[in-house]
Amino acid sequence: MTLKPGQRAQDEVFMARALELAARGLGWTSPNPLVGAVIVKDGRVVGEGWHTAYGQPHAEREALAACSESAAGGTIYVTLEPCCHWGKTPPCTSGILEAGIARVVVGALDPNPLVAGRGCALLREAGLTVDAGIMEEECQHLNETFFHFITTGRPLVVMKYAMTLDGKVATRTGASRWITGPEARARVHRDRHRFGAIMVGIGTALADNPALTCRLEGGPWRQPLRVVVDSHARLPLDAELVRGARTIPTMVAVAAEPQADATRGHRPSTAPAGTSSHEAREARAGRLAALRRAGCSVWVSPPTGSKTAVNLPALLDHLGSLGIDSVLVEGGPTLHGALADEGLVNRVQAYVAPKLFGGNEAPGPVAGRGAALPSDGLHLSPPAVTVLGVDLLLESEVDPCSPAS
Amino acid sequence: MTLKPGQRAQDEVFMARALELAARGLGWTSPNPLVGAVIVKDGRVVGEGWHTAYGQPHAEREALAACSESAAGGTIYVTLEPCCHWGKTPPCTSGILEAGIARVVVGALDPNPLVAGRGCALLREAGLTVDAGIMEEECQHLNETFFHFITTGRPLVVMKYAMTLDGKVATRTGASRWITGPEARARVHRDRHRFGAIMVGIGTALADNPALTCRLEGGPWRQPLRVVVDSHARLPLDAELVRGARTIPTMVAVAAEPQADATRGHRPSTAPAGTSSHEAREARAGRLAALRRAGCSVWVSPPTGSKTAVNLPALLDHLGSLGIDSVLVEGGPTLHGALADEGLVNRVQAYVAPKLFGGNEAPGPVAGRGAALPSDGLHLSPPAVTVLGVDLLLESEVDPCSPAS
Repeated sequence: MTLKPGQRAQDEVFMARALELAARGLGWTSPNPLVGAVIVKDGRVVGEGWHTAYGQPHAEREALAACSESAAGGTIYVTLEPCCHWGKTPPCTSGILEAGIARVVVGALDPNPLVAGRGCALLREAGLTVDAGIMEEECQHLNETFFHFITTGRPLVVMKYAMTLDGKVATRTGASRWITGPEARARVHRDRHRFGAIMVGIGTALADNPALTCRLEGGPWRQPLRVVVDSHARLPLDAELVRGARTIPTMVAVAAEPQADATRGHRPSTAPAGTSSHEAREARAGRLAALRRAGCSVWVSPPTGSKTAVNLPALLDHLGSLGIDSVLVEGGPTLHGALADEGLVNRVQAYVAPKLFGGNEAPGPVAGRGAALPSDGLHLSPPAVTVLGVDLLLESEVDPCSPAS
Repeated sequence: MTLKPGQRAQDEVFMARALELAARGLGWTSPNPLVGAVIVKDGRVVGEGWHTAYGQPHAEREALAACSESAAGGTIYVTLEPCCHWGKTPPCTSGILEAGIARVVVGALDPNPLVAGRGCALLREAGLTVDAGIMEEECQHLNETFFHFITTGRPLVVMKYAMTLDGKVATRTGASRWITGPEARARVHRDRHRFGAIMVGIGTALADNPALTCRLEGGPWRQPLRVVVDSHARLPLDAELVRGARTIPTMVAVAAEPQADATRGHRPSTAPAGTSSHEAREARAGRLAALRRAGCSVWVSPPTGSKTAVNLPALLDHLGSLGIDSVLVEGGPTLHGALADEGLVNRVQAYVAPKLFGGNEAPGPVAGRGAALPSDGLHLSPPAVTVLGVDLLLESEVDPCSPAS
């Protein structure tokens, strides 16, 4: 790409505006990407648009429709490569061609295998000038979640916890309300809105009885899917999560049904079940039926080796198949540890409060088996620091080449 | 104090210079404060000085001696109230009076009960203009250690640890080298120079075999006293700490000698000792004698209730009586926990590395009994954040009104 210096600067001004517009869709476009578009003629903005919500027109279509004059001969700035395939809406490349746009400036290429450079190629073949990679890093950063989802088929997994400066998520008695202050807690509520799903382990569901909803003024807020990892189906029917399940989608992920012979070694599964084992299976089936009647969806995991546990990679695949692009995992230490041990964590959000609990028995944020040597741990990016009242938020990406991954 | 606005601004310029000079003594003046002085005539600096090291002249004397012309009629800026008592050197108030200084601008008042406002009062009575409290906060901050020491008689206790973003100071196998990177480790070495003593528990001494010295280019560096809290006198003679004890002062703090009847309830201590208990006492005496021969000083704690442990408040009192104004406690979790449980920690330095160890068995930085409820924990100030390579240093002051204190 060869651009005059002045043109480059002007391109960045309009791309920055397109990025601003794109961010307005935050929380509503999932599993689609955030996209903004600006149409410019003779240095003047004549139309702007963004992808407002899943199922709604794409940003390019919105900007074209909003034009105050003909877009013919103009330049369109778009944060993500225009799509060239039919999805819920017709391809944006057709719209751009029909409008007579002369130049297309693209932020990031679309990693969606259905697009992946083909959008730009199609426009170039049609005779338009296409300049890609303007503010590419910012445009990619905006859609990290989408890029992860579209390339892996699994949601981006963000592990979130609130700990004291000495790394405790509860006191020795298990008390944890509250560790962080109101600013940090408000940030968590606001963040929930951006995720496809919120996940907790059964320990946290039982100990804290959380609602996991986005409870903030100034909505509307989208309520993400709530997922409880509950191997033995212990979630009680009067839990907040179950009581709200008719209005907010709630999934209970349970382990594969125990084999009748599980405790007797490797006898064939056609062997007659012991009565106690049979009764336990009946009881479990009853609990699952009751959870379904209460409005929960129940997902039964495929088996996981010898343990009675939820198969976490399979759960993430399942969530991906439902179009869940991102999961905020809010604890507890057991679930965090299991995800870390399997290398399934993509990002860490550590809220750090200026308190010291101490205590040999007080739990830390990540249990599980853990690394044997320092070099075996998950490698993270240098944390981004946000001050939230008296607390800090430290955010790191997990290096995908970490040993555990 | 009523000052013209222009004068106030000018005063702050010269006081800022005096603060710069004061900081040059960092690490060398203990247990004296850091002090800087600037002498000004007609808006020109005619003399500067600082307290360079314990036993050397005070800053005011240094500045007067360095004057390029007579100081008579001039103004002296001094970061700390001039002393009015005889210590190792004659009182600074006399020097100021003899030099014919007309105005004295003071940063912070000296909390030393031997001074405490009397220095300023004496100068005012002699007819000088005295303005106190210029950049008072900065001047107090510079000497927090001294102020703590002079008012409590105990060293300022700084608890330091390096942990992962999930609050682990070692992996489940106990491996901890290295958690932080070279920038953070260099900072620790530089910091050691500023402390009167470095302290570790016997667990850390045995596991890491540290030298606890200041090993950096660009010295000379003062080597602080090394203190090992070693209740049962387990420190081996070939430990780095013992091997270096002839050149670097090293103290082994052991618990009070176990009473012969300690395991038999409350029989009077004149009761004949059991043979095995007698042998254990002999063995301990032999180990202590060997440590002394190797160059260590051995401090035997007064008893601590029913436990065989070092009485930590008594140890801090003892260090204070030796003129140790500050202690950097470098672990491990057991010693940190004991200090936190007794409310003996004044400041926390948490180095946080972008790694995740995980592990239910991996230790956190502060063990001990710990708080029962979140409100019972130590309350800290919002952390000051320093970026050191890929690591962070989070520093907080312990609120002296914390429940545990």
